Amino acid sequence: MTPPAAPAAAPPAEPDLLPAAFLGDLPVEDFLRHGHELVEWVGRYFADPGRYPVLPRVAPGDVRAQLPPSPPPNAEPLGEALADAERVLVPGLTQWNHPGFFAYFANSSTAAGTLGELLAAALNVNAMLWKTAPAATELELVAVDWLRQLLGLGEGWHGHINDTASSGTLVALAAAREADPALAVRERGTAGRADLPALRVYCSEHAHSSVDKAAITLGIGHANVVKVGADAALRMRPDLLARAVAEDRARGMRPLAVVATAGTTSTAAVDPTAEVAAVCREAGAWLHVDASYGGAAAAVPELRAHVLGGVEHADSLVVNPHKWLFTPMDCSVLWVRRPDVVRRAFALVPDYLVTAEQGEAVNLMDYGVALGRRFRALKLWMVLRTFGAEGVAERVRYHCQLAREFAGWVAAEPGWAMAAPVSLSLACFRYAPAGLAAAEHDALGERILDRVNRSGEVYLSHTRLAGRHVLRLAVGNVRTERRHVARAWALLREAAAALRPGA
Amino acid sequence: MTPPAAPAAAPPAEPDLLPAAFLGDLPVEDFLRHGHELVEWVGRYFADPGRYPVLPRVAPGDVRAQLPPSPPPNAEPLGEALADAERVLVPGLTQWNHPGFFAYFANSSTAAGTLGELLAAALNVNAMLWKTAPAATELELVAVDWLRQLLGLGEGWHGHINDTASSGTLVALAAAREADPALAVRERGTAGRADLPALRVYCSEHAHSSVDKAAITLGIGHANVVKVGADAALRMRPDLLARAVAEDRARGMRPLAVVATAGTTSTAAVDPTAEVAAVCREAGAWLHVDASYGGAAAAVPELRAHVLGGVEHADSLVVNPHKWLFTPMDCSVLWVRRPDVVRRAFALVPDYLVTAEQGEAVNLMDYGVALGRRFRALKLWMVLRTFGAEGVAERVRYHCQLAREFAGWVAAEPGWAMAAPVSLSLACFRYAPAGLAAAEHDALGERILDRVNRSGEVYLSHTRLAGRHVLRLAVGNVRTERRHVARAWALLREAAAALRPGA
Repeated sequence: MTPPAAPAAAPPAEPDLLPAAFLGDLPVEDFLRHGHELVEWVGRYFADPGRYPVLPRVAPGDVRAQLPPSPPPNAEPLGEALADAERVLVPGLTQWNHPGFFAYFANSSTAAGTLGELLAAALNVNAMLWKTAPAATELELVAVDWLRQLLGLGEGWHGHINDTASSGTLVALAAAREADPALAVRERGTAGRADLPALRVYCSEHAHSSVDKAAITLGIGHANVVKVGADAALRMRPDLLARAVAEDRARGMRPLAVVATAGTTSTAAVDPTAEVAAVCREAGAWLHVDASYGGAAAAVPELRAHVLGGVEHADSLVVNPHKWLFTPMDCSVLWVRRPDVVRRAFALVPDYLVTAEQGEAVNLMDYGVALGRRFRALKLWMVLRTFGAEGVAERVRYHCQLAREFAGWVAAEPGWAMAAPVSLSLACFRYAPAGLAAAEHDALGERILDRVNRSGEVYLSHTRLAGRHVLRLAVGNVRTERRHVARAWALLREAAAALRPGA
Repeated sequence: MTPPAAPAAAPPAEPDLLPAAFLGDLPVEDFLRHGHELVEWVGRYFADPGRYPVLPRVAPGDVRAQLPPSPPPNAEPLGEALADAERVLVPGLTQWNHPGFFAYFANSSTAAGTLGELLAAALNVNAMLWKTAPAATELELVAVDWLRQLLGLGEGWHGHINDTASSGTLVALAAAREADPALAVRERGTAGRADLPALRVYCSEHAHSSVDKAAITLGIGHANVVKVGADAALRMRPDLLARAVAEDRARGMRPLAVVATAGTTSTAAVDPTAEVAAVCREAGAWLHVDASYGGAAAAVPELRAHVLGGVEHADSLVVNPHKWLFTPMDCSVLWVRRPDVVRRAFALVPDYLVTAEQGEAVNLMDYGVALGRRFRALKLWMVLRTFGAEGVAERVRYHCQLAREFAGWVAAEPGWAMAAPVSLSLACFRYAPAGLAAAEHDALGERILDRVNRSGEVYLSHTRLAGRHVLRLAVGNVRTERRHVARAWALLREAAAALRPGA
């Protein structure tokens, strides 16, 4: 290594700079004036979250065409930027806050979460090290522990916040790879090693694509993600899992991890975690539970055993407060049993990040890929405080009740049928009038979906089950009331009546 | 595969729910009242960013001890949560906005960035698909293209926003692995394959730890990150790089990628990208440029060639607006030459995410690990509009001038010496009075650093160069003026006078 250059009398490599003067940020008066205006705007928006169509009436390129192609050479007033945001951007957005948002799984923006984000953006700390943001680091540990208690999880979990469950699952599977130090993946990698078998990851055929993406990213490979068949309720079958694991072992492959899902994306099915855990234990495989959507239901005491039963045997668990826990994007909690294994997978402390507190304080940069870390805990903590444990449970319970009521309407209506057991706050269904072939049902479902979504009043999405097109109505936004679900049902029936052959 | 269960008349698996009723979010009046209060608070905070000590006077556990160990069973008023945030959390934070923040590389919170985050949190869209947030997707493409122009980059770059440069570098190296489809890493992974050689990644010995972390995460392995020696100005030596690549090839290893750094963390050294690119071209290796800090300097026309010269030969480039471009955390832009290769590494479209616009619109979930994506472009776009290209350049230029002026003071002062050439807005220096051994200089440096940081007026950090302790003063926060740098220098000299042997 070359020793550092001695005295810097040596001329710097860069060209001479022109004299410059301090400019700083915009005047505080601008912030105050436009900040108050924006609070008023957001207040009106929250008061009437249905005032924009839930799906915007734009085609690809429409928004971009309204924006200048180059940055302005000189500063423009803050008020103009905000006015353009209201004029051009907001009407070009899908309205995730709309009470008729029933697609995918809902996100919720809330008063507490939004103000938490405002304060976090102003403080703008980087919680990479305890020293660089002590209160943000400690609040993160507190907030995820509050959430642990609220979901009825036992002790002995170490939690931290990632942006999304995709990142959390990637961290969990990376840790799984380090759980057996003999693999020496951190140091030696996996390529070019004759000593290493193929590493296998198992999940239900209905597991989220983030499992595949994590396996691809980690170099495990898409072909090494084993999709295990499901039962009639679309839950992973532990017997098929055990068989797949045994077959792989017989072929010299290494079962690394199993991902059980508590609330699949397609149908909200909950895998039988306790039975899956037994297979993992026998195989020495890491058990990760993806409860990114469903975990919130554990806030409801009477749903807890259903959704998170068996999770006490898991090695890691991911739950997204930004999905069904009323916290703005992004906020995903990963709990692990053995934080030392996660640190073994990710901790790197270069000289410039060494601090005196290293031994006694948690440095959250050691638990994942990102070094820079926003103060995400603030919004979560504010939501938990202002809703309270009971307030969270009541809202989640209400959403489940709405989905169940909707399913009842579907099941009772001629020509309509549920396509999977209703689970948590999700109903999967189809319009399948007698006398039509399955392919015609599928085409009709696509047209019904397109028609109701064009109304601007609701947004539903779809999935496929056994190759068949299925409609999904997922309740989860804090602003959704019974009347919005009823309106969705009315629009669906109207569309079916208008579109069915012979109508 | 089991066909989906037919009519859902079957009793649901979960227990019966108690009747519940709509609760919704807090009343809008609460949001308005506390939103306006918070805007006033942030305005006062921005007006006097030095009113808290830059390093808080807390020990590990102090903040946590002031917070209840469990979530409240019932809702608490929003005002109480905000009051506790001000009383307990803010004084326990490192003040990244403090104009005396000279540690690491600064982040800046700005009026435009903060209000952009407020609006993004309220709208709370998920820009995973074009359809789920058309304006957020298109604004992201526009804002990163504005930034491309502002930095003087040519055409032919496709940009998107990640949380941090660590994620951007991971995405770039994952793409490097897919650039040669013959490796078939996506499908088959890298473990258990006799056909695959070790994959090698090269970077300067002064490159950021995120390169190591990405290689570990991707399964490339820490031992396969080759640290290339630097010249007297601490820049990667292309001749040593070429030699390392040749040696690896001779051993049957596969040179996958080289990471050049434009602004290293320790000293802001800029690797000779054009010469590094020549080695990459010859070796068929991907060239990624980590300009996460330094890239902002390209906003200054006279610094552009210095900092980003040769980048036109790179395959990918990362620049962090949340570092030196006055945008709140988190916002890191990754540009790539071949977006199809990134999509090959990451795109996965399960049935439930198929949309009609798939062919004609960009779905940004296809460009990285995370599926959920915050509306990060909004704050960046608002900063670029309200500062303008010239406003950004003037501020960056001023910061470089401050670092250079500080370096002049150091070089002129007996007992003090620069430890590396001043580069961009960073000065590396030490107190090394005659008559002491190197180890004594190091110990003195540590004590001086501790003492000035305890003042609460400034925060500097350190690094090690050739094993020696070195002080760093990095200018970059939008609120830092010449008087703050002068104050840092006064505190440093006072500390040295008080602590030097015999004082």
